[in-house]
Amino acid sequence: MNTFGRIFRISIFGESHGSVVGVTIDGLPHGIKLNADDFTADLARRRAGTKGTTPRVESDIPEIATGWFNGYTTGAPLTILFRNENTKPGDYDKLKDVPRPGHSDFVAYHKFEGYNDYRGGGHFSGRLTLALVAAGVVAKKVIPEVSIVAKLIEAGGKANIDEAIEDSQKQNDSIGGIVECTATGIPIGLGEPFFDSVESVISHLAFSIPAVKSIEFGSGFTASRMRGSEHNDPIIDSSGNTATNHAGGINGGITNGNPLVFRIAVKPTSSIAKSQQTLNVKTGKTEFLTVQGRHDTCIALRVPVVAEAITAIALADLLLIERVRKNR
Amino acid sequence: MNTFGRIFRISIFGESHGSVVGVTIDGLPHGIKLNADDFTADLARRRAGTKGTTPRVESDIPEIATGWFNGYTTGAPLTILFRNENTKPGDYDKLKDVPRPGHSDFVAYHKFEGYNDYRGGGHFSGRLTLALVAAGVVAKKVIPEVSIVAKLIEAGGKANIDEAIEDSQKQNDSIGGIVECTATGIPIGLGEPFFDSVESVISHLAFSIPAVKSIEFGSGFTASRMRGSEHNDPIIDSSGNTATNHAGGINGGITNGNPLVFRIAVKPTSSIAKSQQTLNVKTGKTEFLTVQGRHDTCIALRVPVVAEAITAIALADLLLIERVRKNR
Amino acid sequence: MNTFGRIFRISIFGESHGSVVGVTIDGLPHGIKLNADDFTADLARRRAGTKGTTPRVESDIPEIATGWFNGYTTGAPLTILFRNENTKPGDYDKLKDVPRPGHSDFVAYHKFEGYNDYRGGGHFSGRLTLALVAAGVVAKKVIPEVSIVAKLIEAGGKANIDEAIEDSQKQNDSIGGIVECTATGIPIGLGEPFFDSVESVISHLAFSIPAVKSIEFGSGFTASRMRGSEHNDPIIDSSGNTATNHAGGINGGITNGNPLVFRIAVKPTSSIAKSQQTLNVKTGKTEFLTVQGRHDTCIALRVPVVAEAITAIALADLLLIERVRKNR
Amino acid sequence: MNTFGRIFRISIFGESHGSVVGVTIDGLPHGIKLNADDFTADLARRRAGTKGTTPRVESDIPEIATGWFNGYTTGAPLTILFRNENTKPGDYDKLKDVPRPGHSDFVAYHKFEGYNDYRGGGHFSGRLTLALVAAGVVAKKVIPEVSIVAKLIEAGGKANIDEAIEDSQKQNDSIGGIVECTATGIPIGLGEPFFDSVESVISHLAFSIPAVKSIEFGSGFTASRMRGSEHNDPIIDSSGNTATNHAGGINGGITNGNPLVFRIAVKPTSSIAKSQQTLNVKTGKTEFLTVQGRHDTCIALRVPVVAEAITAIALADLLLIERVRKNR
Repeated sequence: MNTFGRIFRISIFGESHGSVVGVTIDGLPHGIKLNADDFTADLARRRAGTKGTTPRVESDIPEIATGWFNGYTTGAPLTILFRNENTKPGDYDKLKDVPRPGHSDFVAYHKFEGYNDYRGGGHFSGRLTLALVAAGVVAKKVIPEVSIVAKLIEAGGKANIDEAIEDSQKQNDSIGGIVECTATGIPIGLGEPFFDSVESVISHLAFSIPAVKSIEFGSGFTASRMRGSEHNDPIIDSSGNTATNHAGGINGGITNGNPLVFRIAVKPTSSIAKSQQTLNVKTGKTEFLTVQGRHDTCIALRVPVVAEAITAIALADLLLIERVRKNR
Repeated sequence: MNTFGRIFRISIFGESHGSVVGVTIDGLPHGIKLNADDFTADLARRRAGTKGTTPRVESDIPEIATGWFNGYTTGAPLTILFRNENTKPGDYDKLKDVPRPGHSDFVAYHKFEGYNDYRGGGHFSGRLTLALVAAGVVAKKVIPEVSIVAKLIEAGGKANIDEAIEDSQKQNDSIGGIVECTATGIPIGLGEPFFDSVESVISHLAFSIPAVKSIEFGSGFTASRMRGSEHNDPIIDSSGNTATNHAGGINGGITNGNPLVFRIAVKPTSSIAKSQQTLNVKTGKTEFLTVQGRHDTCIALRVPVVAEAITAIALADLLLIERVRKNR
Repeated sequence: MNTFGRIFRISIFGESHGSVVGVTIDGLPHGIKLNADDFTADLARRRAGTKGTTPRVESDIPEIATGWFNGYTTGAPLTILFRNENTKPGDYDKLKDVPRPGHSDFVAYHKFEGYNDYRGGGHFSGRLTLALVAAGVVAKKVIPEVSIVAKLIEAGGKANIDEAIEDSQKQNDSIGGIVECTATGIPIGLGEPFFDSVESVISHLAFSIPAVKSIEFGSGFTASRMRGSEHNDPIIDSSGNTATNHAGGINGGITNGNPLVFRIAVKPTSSIAKSQQTLNVKTGKTEFLTVQGRHDTCIALRVPVVAEAITAIALADLLLIERVRKNR
Repeated sequence: MNTFGRIFRISIFGESHGSVVGVTIDGLPHGIKLNADDFTADLARRRAGTKGTTPRVESDIPEIATGWFNGYTTGAPLTILFRNENTKPGDYDKLKDVPRPGHSDFVAYHKFEGYNDYRGGGHFSGRLTLALVAAGVVAKKVIPEVSIVAKLIEAGGKANIDEAIEDSQKQNDSIGGIVECTATGIPIGLGEPFFDSVESVISHLAFSIPAVKSIEFGSGFTASRMRGSEHNDPIIDSSGNTATNHAGGINGGITNGNPLVFRIAVKPTSSIAKSQQTLNVKTGKTEFLTVQGRHDTCIALRVPVVAEAITAIALADLLLIERVRKNR
């Protein structure tokens, strides 16, 4: 399903090497000041071009195509379009029959019975995160009281991220990383029992980011090794502030007013220049594949701004829903 | 939101100490053989009564109230009702003004401005997992080709789980644990790009289980510390079998035919008999609270069958959606 | 799909001659005063027992099973259950193979491949409107500023409704009717472009009422025979009041502050005591059928309170959605 | 809400005088042959330029921007974009403060607090039906076994439609009309109880077409004046064929295999060159307005192809959902 959200609803579309990647946001309040410039900073953070990212660089100029008039959102669906320019679809012809290990090639071929756009992963590409980042920029404007910051805190198992990338590049290999995201200024009470806990909504979106394989809130996996007396965060004032924050700002699936904290694990990029064993689906024989094309050594480098975006999207939706309850 | 799913849609309702807990399943195919006895085994696994679980024991007899005729599902919404019998709401009067640390009491009070049913957490209670387990029993019948097994693999950080529980009980404290779930027999191709990856759907449901704070698929957090050449699973035959399974049976958010594997971390039970600091929301003063009532030392003990249930629910929905594609 | 609505979401379940008919309302605001007595008047209006309605009379006592505490809604899903008591399933054994003309028997048999509960139409029964009326009672409390009145304005083509019914009964036949519904006190601006116009949402619900075959808003079909200069309603003040109300209170799918007016046409009851031609699906031979059982001469008599209910449900949902926009 | 459908899901976006009108279709099966030429015939039928339609003529060239590869759908979201070219936004400056009677101007201004794009009705414009027609072309390919034909059977209350239009134009006035739509080849069993009856789904979409104020299925309003013995359609063979078709091919909300028949009433175009009374919302004073701009004398002329489109969209979705049931 290409749509997510109940009130602030995003629909994304596009392919890695097709003509367009885009997003439509429905349910967006009217009267939000918005200009193309507002996207510049976050799109730049997502864009490739620095060490460890792919040499494919796109200009990523947003066209605000609908739902916008005289500098403000109108309340009608807002569509943002990006034209793909720097495509080299020829790079992928070879991969048609030889799925890259760890990538979506094999499953996409089976699911769509050979009709999938296999160029650069088609719709399964990380290029679609462009649409998420654009939606995130708009979402952040819906919740100006919330501040969201995500950082790559570890790559290839190391805190020295530059070093880890250099090591990996020398070996024609790739590495993963861990991104931590913290959001402050969130009111008490966001999240919907039973199925739309804050964790449910954020994780749903987080696992739509290609390469994410794990998420933990607050103490996360460590929590499973703590005692209750140690893990429970004592409430210290009537605003709900707690002495510790093992819960990551969430109790019973609902925000408790303390900082929301989660970490996501990003696996190493599947496409590597090193030779790997795979199968030729046409011949049924084992082959060894060296992935050509332009790829990231460490895709995790580009994930923090996407993590911020999905957090903003989740919180914008939950905040708008909560308005139904509180403002009567 | 109390509803989840697109085709196989479950809606749950009820409270810990109200009269009823129930679930309605819409979109369930007709002609599925079903009897009250089919629920016995899974409900028993969820039920309390063994060491480390609450002394509150309910008979949990399912009433198949609608959508069922002469031993089979009819295609109309199937409703299963459970009457709460062993309620002691009086146990909770004291907690009205003194929220238990780590529990939903404080946020529920704020979100619902004091109208929430505070008895035993009300709608936020682990008792609602009864409805999930019942839905899981039905979901398993929708996907008979799939086999799902979940186990508690660690409690309080230890593999010897009995010992960990005894230790914790001696100290009037609680512990968490890690549950691993494996599903085999899943066809290639389940999961919907972009937002309904298998990981997205399973994690959405997993975080609706009270006390779950983390989830990882395949190598999960460990994946972030691996090289691509190490993490990528080589495809070894045309059925898509892979030599390793670091991906946990999922590529690009789509099942690849290998076993689906995930682990969830369950935090220690919030309600403990040990004295804890909290706040009296009426007086605004710090208080020390010893939680009365009947609680689990290790709620994780009861989670495996719930993890199986949510896996079955997720896979049943994704499988029914995939039928639209494949059977024309 | 058994669920309707985006914020104020109702899910209904049950069968004509099963054990239970019920409704769960999710997204209902907390703090709404509600008691079993509140349902009495509207349930009585829907109930049978007067001239022209079926001799099957049920007590229809609502059990508020979940989402309710100390006289108020809690914000958790509200479930209302009704036990069927006066069932005579034996009445329907004969109809298993001989579908009643004009009824759902034939299509239900085919759609559910014989697994459908055929007793009294099963899930397709008018008895399910019990759940709609109950949801309507709750919806009306969500929009206290709105007043909704529906009336049977014509039966069997006549304004003298009693006479029309007597005529029809003498001939062992049935008649239809037209119900007009007017809602006042609706704020300007309800309805969501593009697909959730007020007309779209109300008609979606109206056609879920068994036997409804047509709906018109404002001048409706007559509008198609008017000139623009005649049909356009002149705006006469800044509150949006118009000199005429051919639009039925809706422009561009959005409420304009004038009374919302629509009419629905109810076909004659399908089940009649007069002999009718049909087919025995087992033998494939033509048969003549005299429908036994207990049926309404004029089901339209019981529709006004249902029409009010679906109007209240539609407006409650649209009003809650609009709150997201206006109350920031 | 700009999205409709459960499996075959369409999202539309755009404005009358903005840069783009478009539609994204999610859930579309892969492997459907599709080219830009396939849109030509239906788009031409919708386009203006003949007697009784607006002099604004757009080239309406579809760009299949995503979800398409090598002549076939890929299974990813399909986006079709249309660039608006022949816009004259200046035409509408005057209307900013003087809402046209019968149009959405007044309600749009209030709903969106003045931020709405008022040019040509903005998102409320009939121009959005371009997106519906495009989606209809694709939907028709999903259900090749179904044949759908809609016709304008009456305009301004007359069967001689040309004459009615000429009369109206002479008086600077506008007229409405009635469109009848018939679909054959539909399998038995489409439609979902309780809320997604075929009538519910089609009417939901029909009332999203601007200017539609009424819908009737089969005998419709006339049914309310018939006896049951007269209205019930006798089943004459085991395929479910009936001797008459007063039900319009639908029983209990489910298709019965006979032709689906419905009629919609289209009100006269609101924008007329004749002087009309309205209110200046800025001054609060009555004004008389002669609408400039380019408008249709009889918008109903352009509705048949839109009626076919929404029928195809509704049936495609219901057919895909039914596949879940039947093909196991």
